[in-house]
Amino acid sequence: MQEIRVTHFGLGPIGAGVIRDMKGRGLLKLVAAVDVDPDKAGRDVAEVAGIPGQVGVRVTTSAKEALGVKSDVAVICTVSSLEGMMPLLEQVIDAGLPVVSTCEELVFPWLARPDLARRIDEKARQRGVQVLGVGVNPGYIMDYLPLVLSSPCRRIDRVEVYRIQDASHRRLPFQKKIGAGYNLEEYARLRDAGKIKHVGLVDSIQMVACGLGWKLDRVEEIIEPIEATRQVSSPQITVPRGHAAGTRQVGRGLVGGRERIYMEMRMSLGEPDPRDTVIIVGEPDIESTIRGGLHGDVATTSLVVNAIPVVSRAHPGLVIMTDIPTLTCLAEVTAS
Amino acid sequence: MQEIRVTHFGLGPIGAGVIRDMKGRGLLKLVAAVDVDPDKAGRDVAEVAGIPGQVGVRVTTSAKEALGVKSDVAVICTVSSLEGMMPLLEQVIDAGLPVVSTCEELVFPWLARPDLARRIDEKARQRGVQVLGVGVNPGYIMDYLPLVLSSPCRRIDRVEVYRIQDASHRRLPFQKKIGAGYNLEEYARLRDAGKIKHVGLVDSIQMVACGLGWKLDRVEEIIEPIEATRQVSSPQITVPRGHAAGTRQVGRGLVGGRERIYMEMRMSLGEPDPRDTVIIVGEPDIESTIRGGLHGDVATTSLVVNAIPVVSRAHPGLVIMTDIPTLTCLAEVTAS
Repeated sequence: MQEIRVTHFGLGPIGAGVIRDMKGRGLLKLVAAVDVDPDKAGRDVAEVAGIPGQVGVRVTTSAKEALGVKSDVAVICTVSSLEGMMPLLEQVIDAGLPVVSTCEELVFPWLARPDLARRIDEKARQRGVQVLGVGVNPGYIMDYLPLVLSSPCRRIDRVEVYRIQDASHRRLPFQKKIGAGYNLEEYARLRDAGKIKHVGLVDSIQMVACGLGWKLDRVEEIIEPIEATRQVSSPQITVPRGHAAGTRQVGRGLVGGRERIYMEMRMSLGEPDPRDTVIIVGEPDIESTIRGGLHGDVATTSLVVNAIPVVSRAHPGLVIMTDIPTLTCLAEVTAS
Repeated sequence: MQEIRVTHFGLGPIGAGVIRDMKGRGLLKLVAAVDVDPDKAGRDVAEVAGIPGQVGVRVTTSAKEALGVKSDVAVICTVSSLEGMMPLLEQVIDAGLPVVSTCEELVFPWLARPDLARRIDEKARQRGVQVLGVGVNPGYIMDYLPLVLSSPCRRIDRVEVYRIQDASHRRLPFQKKIGAGYNLEEYARLRDAGKIKHVGLVDSIQMVACGLGWKLDRVEEIIEPIEATRQVSSPQITVPRGHAAGTRQVGRGLVGGRERIYMEMRMSLGEPDPRDTVIIVGEPDIESTIRGGLHGDVATTSLVVNAIPVVSRAHPGLVIMTDIPTLTCLAEVTAS
């Protein structure tokens, strides 16, 4: 395969992880890197991303400058909000680059933001480039994988997806985000303020429904604490009995008045039996489990890096994971 | 979605199953059906496929006649040998129809038959159509699914795939094909004559290697009896202790002198713990299991039917499962 030149936007934790993953790939060559933080500007991207040695690319705050460098694909790891990403996304599409992005709201925007989805799709088609949102969740484990598992089915009545995670060994911000350690009042306050929430469960339900050709009446979502029934702890937090050990988030997709999609995330300290399970009730029935569950951080950066050689092989436009060739781990492929 | 007209070739057990599955799909309309058997000619395809009522399409022995009917996609369920299918396949490509076929050797012919693969690819590109080989195994459970599971990986050292099946409830021809009931001498004779063998394990190994960008040194394959340690039986066969209860078939893919792909099929009467398991040793490690295993016959016909709306969305040429958009179960979609 030919070397693929990459222009990168966003050097936060995920963006830096993507850069680190890309470094070992003989197929991929970083040619420009952008971050809005002026403290990062002018420094070699290796230093900013925590890689030993030099990459030979200096971080710039100017998207325009970066887009002046000849490249094949853009990676955007800036914000979660699609609206917030639009100006940069349009600038990159205008520059004629296919896009792989970790923006959660780009994974399946067709129902949540049809206005933006259409705008991106039209612009991308006009420029002949592809725009893909990718990540472990949304984007892979609760939507793409269930759809892949639907391929051998004659008929499907119902889809259930469970993502069960023991948060004890995750980063502190993740533990906080699931409300671990708060008493139930604090938890309720934070949840009601939208601070405790996995973004993307509704999008996953919409993507699965759409992939199966089901018309959703509506999606219901609840977020509630998982109460510690005994004291539990992580290296960073100790949760007394009766406080929140984490969060249970459930989404239900109603089709023709019936609940046909059920998705449940349980993320807590000491959560038993961590796993990712897909249950298809249909013909045949399928129950598929990834034991221990898929590690979120590694998976997301890997999906991004594995998408880079694939994205431009899809039809131009706004594409989702099921529109494009399968991402595979091409870690050992070198440019020829 | 628009109605998709289908021209069908081959009304054996699998082909008839495809016709039955297609019948309930509002999106698909059978417009012509071909079988070489003169006894089937002139009869309504419903009768031949075992569907109540009429489809309104009469079986013909003439591919030429069938290809005279305006259509969108051809389904070919005739033979397992790619060489044997070539004349028909070329005729269908010449007629300008995309092809979905259950021909096992078409699933991944790039290493086994590069000459034929190139010939098909060139012809299909010239005519602007896609040619896809599809099935549960090879084609989905031991090759495509492991590659899908490689998407979130940063690095992969080794891939193991296990397909463990209890053959007790399968059709008698399947039980015979795995050698159930023979004494070990008979088993060895039949195996050495090539009568006991799952076709496609080597192809699956080649497809996985290729998908990961690994260059195979060679593939080794062994086929051996699973000896009954006690009397076992199915409704059709009783196997005395010491006779073959079934077959264990193992394939090993060597890359850089190391075994990096290991695939094992165990199919026997009373086989314990039936399942389909993929183990990826890498970063992250992934162990994914479909409990009970995926039912082969339903899966293959469903994959074919689910491929029909998707195949023409890929780039023209000889395509494999990882080249095309994801097949999903579109059982409820009607033409609009």
